[in-house]
Amino acid sequence: MRVVRPKLSKLLSFIEEKGLDGAVVVGISNVQYFTGFRGGGAILVASREGATLLVPQLEYSKASADAVGVEVRPYYRYPVPGITMPGLIEGTWLDAVAKVVEEYGLSRLGANISSIPYGEAAKLKEKLGDRLALDLSSDISRMRSIKEDDEVEAMVAAARVAEAGLRAAVDALAEGMGEVELAGVVEEAMRRAGAEEYSFPTIVAFEENAAYPHTSPTGRRLGKGEVVLIDLGARLHGYCSDITRTMAFGQLPERSREIAEAVLEAQLAGIDAIAPGVKAEEPDAAARSILEKRGLAKYFIHSLGHGVGIDVHEAPRLSRASEEELEPGMVVTVEPGVYVAGAVGVRIEDMVLVTKKGRRLLTSFERNLF
Amino acid sequence: MRVVRPKLSKLLSFIEEKGLDGAVVVGISNVQYFTGFRGGGAILVASREGATLLVPQLEYSKASADAVGVEVRPYYRYPVPGITMPGLIEGTWLDAVAKVVEEYGLSRLGANISSIPYGEAAKLKEKLGDRLALDLSSDISRMRSIKEDDEVEAMVAAARVAEAGLRAAVDALAEGMGEVELAGVVEEAMRRAGAEEYSFPTIVAFEENAAYPHTSPTGRRLGKGEVVLIDLGARLHGYCSDITRTMAFGQLPERSREIAEAVLEAQLAGIDAIAPGVKAEEPDAAARSILEKRGLAKYFIHSLGHGVGIDVHEAPRLSRASEEELEPGMVVTVEPGVYVAGAVGVRIEDMVLVTKKGRRLLTSFERNLF
Repeated sequence: MRVVRPKLSKLLSFIEEKGLDGAVVVGISNVQYFTGFRGGGAILVASREGATLLVPQLEYSKASADAVGVEVRPYYRYPVPGITMPGLIEGTWLDAVAKVVEEYGLSRLGANISSIPYGEAAKLKEKLGDRLALDLSSDISRMRSIKEDDEVEAMVAAARVAEAGLRAAVDALAEGMGEVELAGVVEEAMRRAGAEEYSFPTIVAFEENAAYPHTSPTGRRLGKGEVVLIDLGARLHGYCSDITRTMAFGQLPERSREIAEAVLEAQLAGIDAIAPGVKAEEPDAAARSILEKRGLAKYFIHSLGHGVGIDVHEAPRLSRASEEELEPGMVVTVEPGVYVAGAVGVRIEDMVLVTKKGRRLLTSFERNLF
Repeated sequence: MRVVRPKLSKLLSFIEEKGLDGAVVVGISNVQYFTGFRGGGAILVASREGATLLVPQLEYSKASADAVGVEVRPYYRYPVPGITMPGLIEGTWLDAVAKVVEEYGLSRLGANISSIPYGEAAKLKEKLGDRLALDLSSDISRMRSIKEDDEVEAMVAAARVAEAGLRAAVDALAEGMGEVELAGVVEEAMRRAGAEEYSFPTIVAFEENAAYPHTSPTGRRLGKGEVVLIDLGARLHGYCSDITRTMAFGQLPERSREIAEAVLEAQLAGIDAIAPGVKAEEPDAAARSILEKRGLAKYFIHSLGHGVGIDVHEAPRLSRASEEELEPGMVVTVEPGVYVAGAVGVRIEDMVLVTKKGRRLLTSFERNLF
């Protein structure tokens, strides 16, 4: 069952619009976006003449099953003798791109060159020479930032899976439980709910460990009156979810509860500030000013949120450094946090769709768990 | 408890040896290798004058706790007002690197430039100008490929965690169980055994899905007489494990059992071919020739194995394209596979340490499960 239709037509329209005759697209998530196939080492060569998906030999059968609207051709530096894959190209991915560009007769190309590691990018530039007319990195990132309905549907389904993980955590909390153990419970519930993969390594952090915005679960055991921070996400239908909840185990001390209440208030202010036409820095400022009033702003040491889609971090960014403007179809996280080093941390995160009239929450799990 | 001592001294010796006065190192795993801190956006500037670890503001407290032998300084484009982190640098990571290089007075630098995305690498080259004398990418990759005893110890511990996952799978197999469900069981067992993270997204594939070398678990349900392929790994003490087993659920049909036996025989031949001084292509050839005799070589569509360490895929590669030579301290996977599209797939994978006299298996789970 394919929930999301690959967006190759968006790329072809863009090619047309820019007066190009083709595009070379690399990157696992970009290639998934345009073709429906997710796998390492795949490169898309798209043109008005047709589109070819180049894949390493070992990905050929999966790519043939999953990709839509493209001819799939394997490449391999030393093909296996006796192999029967049609259209096999002997050589590196660079050789394969050059060959297909030649076959299509393309002379004015775009490529998302600035996303490729320098060593490989330099070789691709050399191969394509004057034919390379445009860096597509930011254009593709912009395309991907505006979600269509089928993409939103996939992300809502992925959010439900993450919420199954949170539900399992609420039910499982017990004195003496380790962070790693709780991570296992949470992930097992996400798998039972159908998770294809995790959006990112699950974070489970107790009390002072929650003061690290990014950390891995450890053997740290849970005690009464401590904070439990869980930041988790699942990939479903190729799209990511990303949610954080901070819950109390037993009765929190006054200071922790005050912080948690302030973070929740800041989050609601951030969400309320989201609307089409709004600058991406404004929700960040709205949340930050709530924390400022409580004297907690100096502990909010990251930006408010980020776009989510095929990647868990993509455009736009909700930060003070952001020059973007929110548009209908964007899906962003809103995740203020307060991190008091050595003491305690709190973060609350939801996913929000920018709509034509305002915003819509894609996540629905109870927030006040303290 | 720190199992692995960071390897900064290796970098400093290298700087000395090459007549450089400093190095700029990027990449999450490279930075972990030299400093002990694993986190996004970190950059190491090492020199004879001292070493500085630059981290985004949100990673400051974790980096300060984890990093060894370096001064930790946060950078941020718009620092939070009232923040109290010492040594904060206002600006991008590029600004921060330029500032520290200036402060140390470095004039002849190495940097692993070819690993950085082209867009950023071009900016770094511009910032460093003539001071950039050497691309360190392959040198660092080579350093990391030779493991010291403490690294091997971490990997053995990580292998035990993965084996706990396999044990749970053997115990849990049941008719009608879904691939995703079994993945949850396996991962939950790895978490209970202490997994900090997974080395890569766990693969659980039944029968015809096992014919895709790379795939994500689906809702596909297990039937009697089918193959169960599980490829899994955990990160422990910052180092990865990577193991694959193919097991039978019930009695396999003759053809599947023949394939599994051939893959096992090929794997043993590949392992036996590993020794110091051997070309990295030889174990691949040894395994391939066994499959050739059974008429199965055309289904072995990837290379025999890869180095493992902080990253699950690192140097060296055991492939026909490899020009490397095996050396004591290298840890590689040996993982032949046979993939009959639409029908069945089998892969068996272990981790092998190259020793002074030969080889040592780091994994110990029963292989013949069919």
